Amino acid sequence: MRILGIDPGSSATGYGVVDWRAGVLVHVDHGVVRPPPGTPLAGRLACIHERILEVARRHRPDVAVVERVFVASNARSALVLGQARGAALAALAAAELEVGELAAREVKQAVVGTGAASKAQVQGMVARLLGLERRPPLDASDALAVAICHAHAGRLAAAGVTPRRRRMSRRALAAQIVGSRS
Amino acid sequence: MRILGIDPGSSATGYGVVDWRAGVLVHVDHGVVRPPPGTPLAGRLACIHERILEVARRHRPDVAVVERVFVASNARSALVLGQARGAALAALAAAELEVGELAAREVKQAVVGTGAASKAQVQGMVARLLGLERRPPLDASDALAVAICHAHAGRLAAAGVTPRRRRMSRRALAAQIVGSRS
Repeated sequence: MRILGIDPGSSATGYGVVDWRAGVLVHVDHGVVRPPPGTPLAGRLACIHERILEVARRHRPDVAVVERVFVASNARSALVLGQARGAALAALAAAELEVGELAAREVKQAVVGTGAASKAQVQGMVARLLGLERRPPLDASDALAVAICHAHAGRLAAAGVTPRRRRMSRRALAAQIVGSRS
Repeated sequence: MRILGIDPGSSATGYGVVDWRAGVLVHVDHGVVRPPPGTPLAGRLACIHERILEVARRHRPDVAVVERVFVASNARSALVLGQARGAALAALAAAELEVGELAAREVKQAVVGTGAASKAQVQGMVARLLGLERRPPLDASDALAVAICHAHAGRLAAAGVTPRRRRMSRRALAAQIVGSRS
């Protein structure tokens, strides 16, 4: 199963692609879409749409996953985030992908072991889980974390593990996973 | 000059196209994009993107205009509105259109004569200004109003009218405009 994780943002939209092959996570690609500085709003959104559509068509994932947004700090930032999300989500559906959503807390819990993990902790753990020599940029590591969490959740569901036992299973998973660059 | 007005929304995105020919407003087209009920979020946004891109390519406007959002009622509704706006704006830029923004208050002031006008008042005045036999749907009339306001503002600017005198000029405009269906 190939999973595309997306972390939308107006100045930087991260993406990460992982394969989940026979219980092993394999890193495929990651990157950050940064619309050129000074580009008008609509042009920045078109850039996000175009690049995410291109990534989806190049890697042909089986599913796409984005972070669910519960509460933004205020209406203005929610609008700005919403616009970037709208452009990215429209691109994913244009590529005929099913799009899942995962709560940020759930992603951090699955990858780092605590729902209150910092972005730097997520970054370090993503690099470790995928066997990357260098830490990916923060926006890309958040996107990879979403994809890893989705793989993890699918694996736990297949093994009949209930959500209550996820924290222990996460540790077991971290010990078992062998990551490699493609 | 051909102007495309857009009123983005998650369940209904209105569009309206008007021509401004030698000081006369001419109605070209209007409509409402309503993604099929039950469609997942990303699919609804892709529907908005696809349809608005199609409208922009069919009518080849010189400029697109959307309502500027100042403050949404809360962060949740701002996120939802932002997503629809993001999909629509990305489509407009993909069609290589410049996208202007006009404050809702400014649009109502220009079309009805008061910044506190109701949607129904805007709808009635849009039908009158464009000589439409039937009132367009509310979402489409808001989109047409944005396009009319843009034409109006350009006309006033060309005539050297300052913003302070817009209210009087709006009345003069309403008396002069001859709308016709194309």
